[in-house]
Amino acid sequence: MNMAARVDLNADLGESFGRWRLGADEAVMEFVTSANIACGVHAGDPGTMHRTMKLAAERGVAAGAHPGLPDLAGFGRRRMDVEPEEVFDLVAYQVGALQAFARLCGASLQHVKPHGALYNMAAWDPALAGAVADAVRASGEGLILFGLAGSLLVKAGRDRGLAVAEEVFADRAYGPDGRLLPRRDPRAMIRDPQQALERVLRMVREGRVRAADGADVAVRADTVCIHGDEPGSLALAQALRRGLEAAGVAVQKVSAPP
Amino acid sequence: MNMAARVDLNADLGESFGRWRLGADEAVMEFVTSANIACGVHAGDPGTMHRTMKLAAERGVAAGAHPGLPDLAGFGRRRMDVEPEEVFDLVAYQVGALQAFARLCGASLQHVKPHGALYNMAAWDPALAGAVADAVRASGEGLILFGLAGSLLVKAGRDRGLAVAEEVFADRAYGPDGRLLPRRDPRAMIRDPQQALERVLRMVREGRVRAADGADVAVRADTVCIHGDEPGSLALAQALRRGLEAAGVAVQKVSAPP
Amino acid sequence: MNMAARVDLNADLGESFGRWRLGADEAVMEFVTSANIACGVHAGDPGTMHRTMKLAAERGVAAGAHPGLPDLAGFGRRRMDVEPEEVFDLVAYQVGALQAFARLCGASLQHVKPHGALYNMAAWDPALAGAVADAVRASGEGLILFGLAGSLLVKAGRDRGLAVAEEVFADRAYGPDGRLLPRRDPRAMIRDPQQALERVLRMVREGRVRAADGADVAVRADTVCIHGDEPGSLALAQALRRGLEAAGVAVQKVSAPP
Amino acid sequence: MNMAARVDLNADLGESFGRWRLGADEAVMEFVTSANIACGVHAGDPGTMHRTMKLAAERGVAAGAHPGLPDLAGFGRRRMDVEPEEVFDLVAYQVGALQAFARLCGASLQHVKPHGALYNMAAWDPALAGAVADAVRASGEGLILFGLAGSLLVKAGRDRGLAVAEEVFADRAYGPDGRLLPRRDPRAMIRDPQQALERVLRMVREGRVRAADGADVAVRADTVCIHGDEPGSLALAQALRRGLEAAGVAVQKVSAPP
Repeated sequence: MNMAARVDLNADLGESFGRWRLGADEAVMEFVTSANIACGVHAGDPGTMHRTMKLAAERGVAAGAHPGLPDLAGFGRRRMDVEPEEVFDLVAYQVGALQAFARLCGASLQHVKPHGALYNMAAWDPALAGAVADAVRASGEGLILFGLAGSLLVKAGRDRGLAVAEEVFADRAYGPDGRLLPRRDPRAMIRDPQQALERVLRMVREGRVRAADGADVAVRADTVCIHGDEPGSLALAQALRRGLEAAGVAVQKVSAPP
Repeated sequence: MNMAARVDLNADLGESFGRWRLGADEAVMEFVTSANIACGVHAGDPGTMHRTMKLAAERGVAAGAHPGLPDLAGFGRRRMDVEPEEVFDLVAYQVGALQAFARLCGASLQHVKPHGALYNMAAWDPALAGAVADAVRASGEGLILFGLAGSLLVKAGRDRGLAVAEEVFADRAYGPDGRLLPRRDPRAMIRDPQQALERVLRMVREGRVRAADGADVAVRADTVCIHGDEPGSLALAQALRRGLEAAGVAVQKVSAPP
Repeated sequence: MNMAARVDLNADLGESFGRWRLGADEAVMEFVTSANIACGVHAGDPGTMHRTMKLAAERGVAAGAHPGLPDLAGFGRRRMDVEPEEVFDLVAYQVGALQAFARLCGASLQHVKPHGALYNMAAWDPALAGAVADAVRASGEGLILFGLAGSLLVKAGRDRGLAVAEEVFADRAYGPDGRLLPRRDPRAMIRDPQQALERVLRMVREGRVRAADGADVAVRADTVCIHGDEPGSLALAQALRRGLEAAGVAVQKVSAPP
Repeated sequence: MNMAARVDLNADLGESFGRWRLGADEAVMEFVTSANIACGVHAGDPGTMHRTMKLAAERGVAAGAHPGLPDLAGFGRRRMDVEPEEVFDLVAYQVGALQAFARLCGASLQHVKPHGALYNMAAWDPALAGAVADAVRASGEGLILFGLAGSLLVKAGRDRGLAVAEEVFADRAYGPDGRLLPRRDPRAMIRDPQQALERVLRMVREGRVRAADGADVAVRADTVCIHGDEPGSLALAQALRRGLEAAGVAVQKVSAPP
């Protein structure tokens, strides 16, 4: 596998709601090249969406929609029994709402990345993967679909002719099947920034990652997910950004020309 | 005043939410030329928006956004202390979300009509009127703003160069200042379909309506609001449509060429 | 098995929300002896709860709480990944809120019956069954737990010393394991009122029901669920009530003395 | 006026919602004697209510309900057009829900204090004041109503025979009519902790406060509101608690025996 020495860093932003503030959006914007903006259903509200989009536009960070399940109390992180048709409408609704704020800021959306439980469900359920990909395709020309590297969501996007970015996680361990280890597995989290950086470098340059059982698995790393809402995550983001650039990897938005 | 003998009939549609059904959308679509579709904030949900938009597109009814206040429990009918900036974002959000479904159905939005308390507040509060008009102008080329005839909302739209449709009510009485009598006034409702028709005909052809005190007031009637969710309202809608056409008034969407 | 020739008829009521009306509460109250009242989370709102409780108190119908999942858009019918601790708190919250309206009406709650997906999940997941039963036990003395006949929820209630009512369905077919056939099975629905009545009579008097494969299965029928929100359901309710009484079965609330 | 040298300190707590955390509940609990706990409508959720109630019970802080308007996006701070009957039901619902968690923790509610816009509206609208007081009276024996000192809410409570606690604000300036200066007035905030302490001491011991125009106005200070969600508020709380006690004022919950 021969991959260009470039990669995108993305983060989930605009996750405040009304009186409640969440995340260090301004600080995280310093390190990422793509922002996944919540769309008012699992988090975010119209004012937060507007402000976050404006911030992204000012900083030159590529903006994407981060649609989630209709579960404000659960932050879109709980699996729900939703039908593909409903997922299609939910994604279309949220992407459309965010496009309004992109237009207001003289920007346009680069990508769509489903959030939380929707991301996880669409990764391995072919009907939901198809519904998400269909909604992205119907939402406008040139929108890039972000999905878990190696997942059915990525496949569903490609099958429909969408541009797709495969996403990897710097701070998560992989199983021998290329899937993320569940969080309850004691090996699930990579907490050492240097180790995280080395894993990402290898994923970007070699297309491989060492799984928890010691064997290498193939993985394509178009974009790396950065978390901004937990202690230590900003330090990791900074370490990744600097380390990647120091190693000669171009950190740039997925939509940047080659 | 010299008005063309044409008028638009509009109705609020797509006001179901989840398990709850409201209104006789299919039946009302037979009589109206413009549909105001709820956008998932005071009523409606993504699936309902999609279905209603599809229905409008199939029937050749012009679709518009019907944005409301974030008050699902109150159906957007309760006044709330909202700031102009917040109203701007609320309207932009909802119009954007509905535009997604218009695009999916091969249609585009004709107009925006604020709902319920937002409609009433924007009619006479200049800052809120300006916020709504600004949001409509920013939401896309050619969107027509629907507002209460003679209101500050209509004025705010014109001041910004928007196309505006002045709205009248067939079943409501007017005061000498040209405002609607409040519903608690015993004279507020016009319940006789024939009387309602005659009033609309005079508003359309002469630009005048007899106020509750007996004097004539000037009113511009570009579009007439039809209700579809109350007993007798379908009969009134039918009487209006037939009576207007029998009297030689062209019933057509506001955006139809002259 | 020797069961008393008596049975309770229950229905889900108070399922309106704000502007949206659902169900024929007044009509259904004529036929049932127990009312399961929605508690403002999946359906219902404080005003609806108050009105429904007042109606039940006036009609002498025993009132119970009908707590559901926090999914207004899905009417509490979609399975969600909820933890037992969360279910405990959700049930306690909703029962407490309804108790306020019982007190206002000079009544007290007879029972608690989980709604929709929570009912189905708690029927067969032992941790969720335990959480529901724990919450009912903690919510007050003497509350009766309603659960699917033969389910783990019924068992969890008994294990905790709760009074329990086993619920059967007049219009649903059973599998050989005593579980309801899923709705997608073409045999799932019993649409003939006479057949439904005969099945209920046998469940009440003999503790048996003919499963879809032809064999008898044991079932305990303390209470029968009546639906009020679908065409034909009122006719079924009436047929059941009259047929049971004509056959000498006492139709009375679960909490009535023997 | 002869007032006992004692006072209660209260704070709004349990204002997190789902993923969103707000306030330093544990730290504030060190300084206050009464906790106003959000009830899941404008803020709070069942799990947060349970945890906050448990914390209050463990710390010996008296717990009260803090019911608000159904406006999660606006945190219950926006005035809404609500009818007295609706306010009655909203308050009854929320108090009942919190009582469930009090019972679970072996506690009982001391008081009810309306939140945000409901507090302000009920202070000066007699119909809303009456609705709140009626709901408190109907919600259980012995519940104390907290209201703005000198307001119609306090009067409505007394008229109904309720125990009432008049609330003052350490960090807010008063007008010559005894009402709080609106926040937009540049003199509205008292930012110096020493000055705030001296004002509270005088309100508690003399029943007087110096209004912004220089004249003294009478005010009864049964309880002082402490904010816990803004920078500097914890320092003010600590200064008040220590300063009051150093000056010989007993800081104790309103329901403590004389």
